[in-house]
Amino acid sequence: MDSTGAADCRVTFQPIGKRIVVKAGTSLLDAGRAVGLSISANCGGVGICGKCRVKVVSGKTSPPSRIEQAFLETENFGPNERLACEARVASSVVVELPPEFDANAQRLLVAGVADELICDPNVESHQIALTAPSLQDSRSHYMRVADALNAGVGSRDWTIQPAAAVQFSRIVQQSGWKLTAFSRGSELIGFSGPGSRAVGLAVDVGCTKIAAYLLDLQTGKQLASQGITNPQIPYGEDLITRLVFVARDNGQTELMANLVRDAINKLAANLCFQAKISTEEIAELCIVGNTAMTHLLLGLPVEQLLNAPFVSSIDRDIDMRASELALKSAPGANVHILPGIGGFIGADHVAMILAHGIDRSEKVTIGIDIGTNTEIVLHNSRTDAIVSTSVPSGPAFEGGHVRDGIRAASGAIEKAFFVDQVLEVRTIDNCAPLGICGSGIVDLLAELWRLNYIDERGHLLQRDQLVRSGKHGLEFLVVAAAQSGHGRDIVLTQHDITEIQLAKAAIHAGIVTLLEITNTGAAEVEEMVVAGAFGSYLDLRNSVAIGLLPYLPHASYLQIGNAAGTGARMALVSNTCRERARMIARKVTKVELKKHENFNRLLARATRFPAPRNKVPTL
Amino acid sequence: MDSTGAADCRVTFQPIGKRIVVKAGTSLLDAGRAVGLSISANCGGVGICGKCRVKVVSGKTSPPSRIEQAFLETENFGPNERLACEARVASSVVVELPPEFDANAQRLLVAGVADELICDPNVESHQIALTAPSLQDSRSHYMRVADALNAGVGSRDWTIQPAAAVQFSRIVQQSGWKLTAFSRGSELIGFSGPGSRAVGLAVDVGCTKIAAYLLDLQTGKQLASQGITNPQIPYGEDLITRLVFVARDNGQTELMANLVRDAINKLAANLCFQAKISTEEIAELCIVGNTAMTHLLLGLPVEQLLNAPFVSSIDRDIDMRASELALKSAPGANVHILPGIGGFIGADHVAMILAHGIDRSEKVTIGIDIGTNTEIVLHNSRTDAIVSTSVPSGPAFEGGHVRDGIRAASGAIEKAFFVDQVLEVRTIDNCAPLGICGSGIVDLLAELWRLNYIDERGHLLQRDQLVRSGKHGLEFLVVAAAQSGHGRDIVLTQHDITEIQLAKAAIHAGIVTLLEITNTGAAEVEEMVVAGAFGSYLDLRNSVAIGLLPYLPHASYLQIGNAAGTGARMALVSNTCRERARMIARKVTKVELKKHENFNRLLARATRFPAPRNKVPTL
Repeated sequence: MDSTGAADCRVTFQPIGKRIVVKAGTSLLDAGRAVGLSISANCGGVGICGKCRVKVVSGKTSPPSRIEQAFLETENFGPNERLACEARVASSVVVELPPEFDANAQRLLVAGVADELICDPNVESHQIALTAPSLQDSRSHYMRVADALNAGVGSRDWTIQPAAAVQFSRIVQQSGWKLTAFSRGSELIGFSGPGSRAVGLAVDVGCTKIAAYLLDLQTGKQLASQGITNPQIPYGEDLITRLVFVARDNGQTELMANLVRDAINKLAANLCFQAKISTEEIAELCIVGNTAMTHLLLGLPVEQLLNAPFVSSIDRDIDMRASELALKSAPGANVHILPGIGGFIGADHVAMILAHGIDRSEKVTIGIDIGTNTEIVLHNSRTDAIVSTSVPSGPAFEGGHVRDGIRAASGAIEKAFFVDQVLEVRTIDNCAPLGICGSGIVDLLAELWRLNYIDERGHLLQRDQLVRSGKHGLEFLVVAAAQSGHGRDIVLTQHDITEIQLAKAAIHAGIVTLLEITNTGAAEVEEMVVAGAFGSYLDLRNSVAIGLLPYLPHASYLQIGNAAGTGARMALVSNTCRERARMIARKVTKVELKKHENFNRLLARATRFPAPRNKVPTL
Repeated sequence: MDSTGAADCRVTFQPIGKRIVVKAGTSLLDAGRAVGLSISANCGGVGICGKCRVKVVSGKTSPPSRIEQAFLETENFGPNERLACEARVASSVVVELPPEFDANAQRLLVAGVADELICDPNVESHQIALTAPSLQDSRSHYMRVADALNAGVGSRDWTIQPAAAVQFSRIVQQSGWKLTAFSRGSELIGFSGPGSRAVGLAVDVGCTKIAAYLLDLQTGKQLASQGITNPQIPYGEDLITRLVFVARDNGQTELMANLVRDAINKLAANLCFQAKISTEEIAELCIVGNTAMTHLLLGLPVEQLLNAPFVSSIDRDIDMRASELALKSAPGANVHILPGIGGFIGADHVAMILAHGIDRSEKVTIGIDIGTNTEIVLHNSRTDAIVSTSVPSGPAFEGGHVRDGIRAASGAIEKAFFVDQVLEVRTIDNCAPLGICGSGIVDLLAELWRLNYIDERGHLLQRDQLVRSGKHGLEFLVVAAAQSGHGRDIVLTQHDITEIQLAKAAIHAGIVTLLEITNTGAAEVEEMVVAGAFGSYLDLRNSVAIGLLPYLPHASYLQIGNAAGTGARMALVSNTCRERARMIARKVTKVELKKHENFNRLLARATRFPAPRNKVPTL
């Protein structure tokens, strides 16, 4: 930035994932402004308003100034909380922005495939009218409810836990002796005012995003949905970093678990607010996530996930009380966690297979969900072989490890294409560009390959002035400073391209290995199902053009959205779907790519860009 | 004490229940010494050693002195913790002695009837030998255990909760892949090193005492037992005071629950230490208590127990995770709470009936457990009617509301009898007398009645110099200052006698009401079973002589010890006994004494002492 001789410090802003290198001594506010972050600073950054509060997660900053110390005392600052206008970087730092900043601005795919949900829930609602206790009728509260239900829905050995009995007393005080009882089997799990309905919460915990759906348990109707950024991101963008963080210090198990649990509670509160109900009416939850995410959510041991042979602690489905995870819900609500297949192939993968019915498809089908880890399933309907694998594909497609990569939020370049030698870009929310997100990166790479800006090994070629020498080698100018939202050039560097090559190669090699193992020819594949948020915004032809996805001559390519979330919703409202998920977990064979000698050869080959260079495949 | 004009202040030391009236300005240490309490004060009470730390629960004391303030800072004193040598009373105060003081000195009956326990537990132990994960065998931890058990004990749909999986990983790190698994049904509830056995903890939570028993779940063998004072006592000696305390401020629910839970954990730790095992090997718990105690333990609402018709929240049996009550145990251990009958007739009463088999006795049987509340059951085996009631009998028999009454601890007068006009007393541990406990009080009253010191209405008669005028009327000198352990007279006042009359009348009238309701003549009763600690040390003939127990001409009187604890132990190791307890709870009819017009008449009559005065009944 200048030539004062101050050291270069990298500043990473989380959870948005934005990075910049600044000189030591730069304020966090200035660093944030330089990458286009609108950190609140009503006073203009002179230490008066106290709005620019941020948290320094790691790295060194200047000691708190006098101005800050005054705020520390009066505004109840937590440890490591600073005013961005006063704190100056002294080393590379990671900064966590306040939750308000996120404001759900990141584009999240919560829709998923719009299957009709078949309801077969394990929770019932009962409208009951009781009589108040009297000297002539001194039955216990419990007995009053049990007798009413025995008369209404038939005799069961009704059980109740203390927390539900406490709630009963409160509801009776508030609403009198007419109320709604929720039961699961013969257990009374909660109560609500008269005329309430039991609702359920389905949650898909992704490495980057957490999506939640509020459903009416009797009708399956979706009442509200929302997605937020996974608040664990400041502790590692990819799941391995987070697992290492926890494994290194066992005390962090609780921290990481609480981050997700709090996020789910926040989603629950928001969705219930939208649906005008209380979170106490959530009578059942169903959660999916990859193996690392469910382990962190449940506080399970993770050390064994970090070393070969990468075994999970629990891979079967789990039913437990929501209260044990401190999740907002009816007192006796149950949380169902879908089973995983083993290792890193988790419940979200089972949910995806469930959602699209890949396990019982009559077509030869490949399913893929691309993320920092990419899970792939292949069902050969002729042999009925069904195999899955997980490839670590890194965060490049989610904006990580790419110089100007950002997540899919306002101002992210999501599409890029050349029109007459001029690169056109399209951004999310049509804002001035701030960086490139995954789908934009795939487009860019495909166009660079098509138009001869890179060779088949991914080396940038100095075709014209768009390719230039940067600080660390060649780089391609995507948007010039004058057109960008933060007044700096947006570029794709040689290093960025290499990152993406490694990611796409891993995915491609994974798919080809599954084909080889099941003796399935590429020409036999009839359906290529691409799930997940990134997969939904992806240009499929460009994906095939750069070799991220293989060319399957007879396959129909489908983008099905957040299939894991759909699977979670199906299992939330249906015991039959839970049973199907268990069958899927048993039926699918886990493939260890490391055990297949061909994999490394395939991986090396797949880093190349596929010929012919400028022919767009027909899909 | 002196004539400085300082106000009289009552100092109550809890949990031992000792009271004294001192002048304002007296130090707590001096007040304690005056009643014979050996509060630690190595320095002799000059504020140097800091050993005499006590907690002021209520009332006013002098502000902390400089000496104390130094300790407050360095010794991490809690709120209201004081040095007894420095804190001076400024009003009537309640002082809680530190736990070390209690030192289990109170005599507790933990034995109970010595039935042979028939084991039919719901927990199994399995010795398993697993192989470590490898690239060839990447099954999850869960699957490794499930496969081993399926091969060993047969195929089940094994489930596991996260906490047990966390424990598994830890045990494997410590002891390798050979270990013990505990299961309940098909749930894996915990793990331990190889060769471990599953143990269980039976607990009887009384108003005054908590008794716990550690048992081998497979053999029923008792490994250790212990009783401690209920730490809720500082918040009310009788249960109603405690319930009011909680009902007035809902925030206290947790405090009261935690006091008992912590006490149970302390007992568990002590018993496991004695048995040389870890508390993590406690695979099942069974808890009994009266209705108020189980409600407070479980955090259930209590408001409705304070007003007619006094209904309980839950009276059925409850199974819940020990972890939900923060009780030390295997991660998935279950707590079974026996059912109650309704109102104040709780699980301890059901346990007593279970222990002695009163419900299926072929004799006409009365069972009684005397405490601050006294529960009575009558089983008329001819008509098969079985009725129970609860009478509030106050704390007089446990040393409360009696001037020199103390609990059954060292120095308590437990026996008293006249030999040639001279009163002889016997104390617990043969210490110099400090006060009178329940059994001593009954003896004294019987002797006073027999020897004409009181009339049939309980009025003290000035027969000789042993009856004298005290500050508040007549009093009987039991032990003169020169012979007592604290250098003060021990007396029984007119007011004390009235308290005891009310208590014994309530119990007597309760028994007679049950006889009337079931059309049972006193002569028909064949067995009179007296349970509980107090009931075991009681002189039965004296009890009948003062009209505490009725004279039943054909009954055998049995003292069976802590039958509630025995019932808890039976239900701990046997599902069959749990089923029997459920049947008892269903079969027994609860009697509301208030609804029976005769009761008040019987009560008034029963306050008198029964003629003939000096004839000891033959039992």
